[in-house]
Amino acid sequence: MTSRDKILSLFRSHSEGFISGQEISRMLNISRAAVWKQVELLREQGFEIAAQRSRGYRLLDGPDLLLGSEIEKDLDCELIGRSVHCLNEIDSTNVQARQLAEEGAADGTVVVADRQSAGRGRLGRRWESPSAVNLYCSILLRPQIPVQQAPQLTFLSAVAVAEILNQLYQLPARVKWPNDVLVGGAKIAGLLNEMNAETDQIHFVILGIGVNLNMTREQFPAQLNYPATSVLLETGQKADRTVFIRALIEKLDAYYLEFKAEGFIPIRRRWEALSDLMSSRVQVDMGNGFLRGTVVGLDSDGALRLQRDDGPVERILAGDVRPL
Amino acid sequence: MTSRDKILSLFRSHSEGFISGQEISRMLNISRAAVWKQVELLREQGFEIAAQRSRGYRLLDGPDLLLGSEIEKDLDCELIGRSVHCLNEIDSTNVQARQLAEEGAADGTVVVADRQSAGRGRLGRRWESPSAVNLYCSILLRPQIPVQQAPQLTFLSAVAVAEILNQLYQLPARVKWPNDVLVGGAKIAGLLNEMNAETDQIHFVILGIGVNLNMTREQFPAQLNYPATSVLLETGQKADRTVFIRALIEKLDAYYLEFKAEGFIPIRRRWEALSDLMSSRVQVDMGNGFLRGTVVGLDSDGALRLQRDDGPVERILAGDVRPL
Repeated sequence: MTSRDKILSLFRSHSEGFISGQEISRMLNISRAAVWKQVELLREQGFEIAAQRSRGYRLLDGPDLLLGSEIEKDLDCELIGRSVHCLNEIDSTNVQARQLAEEGAADGTVVVADRQSAGRGRLGRRWESPSAVNLYCSILLRPQIPVQQAPQLTFLSAVAVAEILNQLYQLPARVKWPNDVLVGGAKIAGLLNEMNAETDQIHFVILGIGVNLNMTREQFPAQLNYPATSVLLETGQKADRTVFIRALIEKLDAYYLEFKAEGFIPIRRRWEALSDLMSSRVQVDMGNGFLRGTVVGLDSDGALRLQRDDGPVERILAGDVRPL
Repeated sequence: MTSRDKILSLFRSHSEGFISGQEISRMLNISRAAVWKQVELLREQGFEIAAQRSRGYRLLDGPDLLLGSEIEKDLDCELIGRSVHCLNEIDSTNVQARQLAEEGAADGTVVVADRQSAGRGRLGRRWESPSAVNLYCSILLRPQIPVQQAPQLTFLSAVAVAEILNQLYQLPARVKWPNDVLVGGAKIAGLLNEMNAETDQIHFVILGIGVNLNMTREQFPAQLNYPATSVLLETGQKADRTVFIRALIEKLDAYYLEFKAEGFIPIRRRWEALSDLMSSRVQVDMGNGFLRGTVVGLDSDGALRLQRDDGPVERILAGDVRPL
């Protein structure tokens, strides 16, 4: 935990009253001058902090920044969440997770940030990442599975996000192949997974997860290729980001342990239950033509299995799927 | 081309007679002092260079180092080999290729080195890489295919290496699933492929290729887990490394273009023709048990298809396969 995190924790636990510089200095084991410096840094970051000579400091208002200590406190997890890197601003949580992976970070390491300066979506598209509004996180995994099975993990994060949106806010979140989470047909989360592997060994997989929590209509870019929404827009209520990330980490951890013990089948079953297109007739835009048929499920490598109208079952590896 | 490369090229084309410092200086457009410095550097690298005041320099002997200019000269290629990075010593050609990939190097970039100080085989095992003896190279590819199909490229390099060993030295080279090349049951080449991808986009694939060309019996480590051989041991003749790498690049380029145009089927057919285990009864060590059956081919994701003795066709993603 950084000094900034510690001091913010102290302020939040004393939000009603003042806390003296002396007490902060004692509890954090830093000098009075260092306390003063940290307070100045917080003010520069937009925190309003009152100071009275006789009573000390008091936090009046400030941005809703995530604190690693609040995320990790009494977290119920075995692998995912044992180590949480909580950052104020970063280029992208996936880039940071990749760097940690190359430095040898452990299976289950979490990177979470208040703001991404270079957030990316699929195919290199920009992902809007304003400060202290949404959830931006990346999970570093080192599963001992064949390379061909790595795409299965894509479905693990989609299922966890959809279920948490439902459990916390009663939102009817659904999954869309290959890796979207929608509410009422509008995109509420984006998943960007990366993998680094050699022929018979996965070095690491990174599950990048962006969830639109408190995004307002005005904060979405004017021109989006698809309809988008957020928890705030759907419920009219602000979502608590710390509560969300904690619930998500615990869910991901439970499903990852299950995946290690039982393989893909339980996740596949959950994903199929959350999909609107199972047993539906769809049209798949293959780029160079269209296929029509009925969705019959997921294959073990994440391909969509399509019973073609004109005969055989086709494995769809890439393509845009629309209901007919 | 580096100054070292240029000066070595000049020496090699004048190997019978002397070449004056003045002529080198003029042809390379560098100062006489720079010529002298390059000659000293070459001597430090083990080259024996005679110098006579009136006649100039003459190359007497020296290590058989690869020269980028000799590899690239009139190379018949469209993608693989358009850019060749030829290095004297490096940690590993795969590491160097990965770095070039992250800096944006193009589809088909080749890295080749005389010596690897940290050559690696599969599963992190050490790969002996003495100087100027064998072939160590890595090919950077950026194929536009689904992530699930990336393992297909493993078979492309195995096929190219086996066919070149046969064409140049009439060696009965065979392929062994997933990515070995054997002569008479002994390993002559090792392939180590890496991939970096996100859900629906491959960033890059690196085909790492090590071929035992002029390795002597004494140069192999005393304790190897498997029998190993080299072109020198099999034929009694030293292989010309430049000739080998040029032939390999041209073959890989042709097969990669074919793969882009026609997909996996032609490569799969060639691989199956080079495999001794097609239609044979084998035992597969799955780590936690054994499977017995008959090999019926490769699946589209590189899995080995095994007709089990006790019924269904099994897809083998990892495991050690031995003939029964």
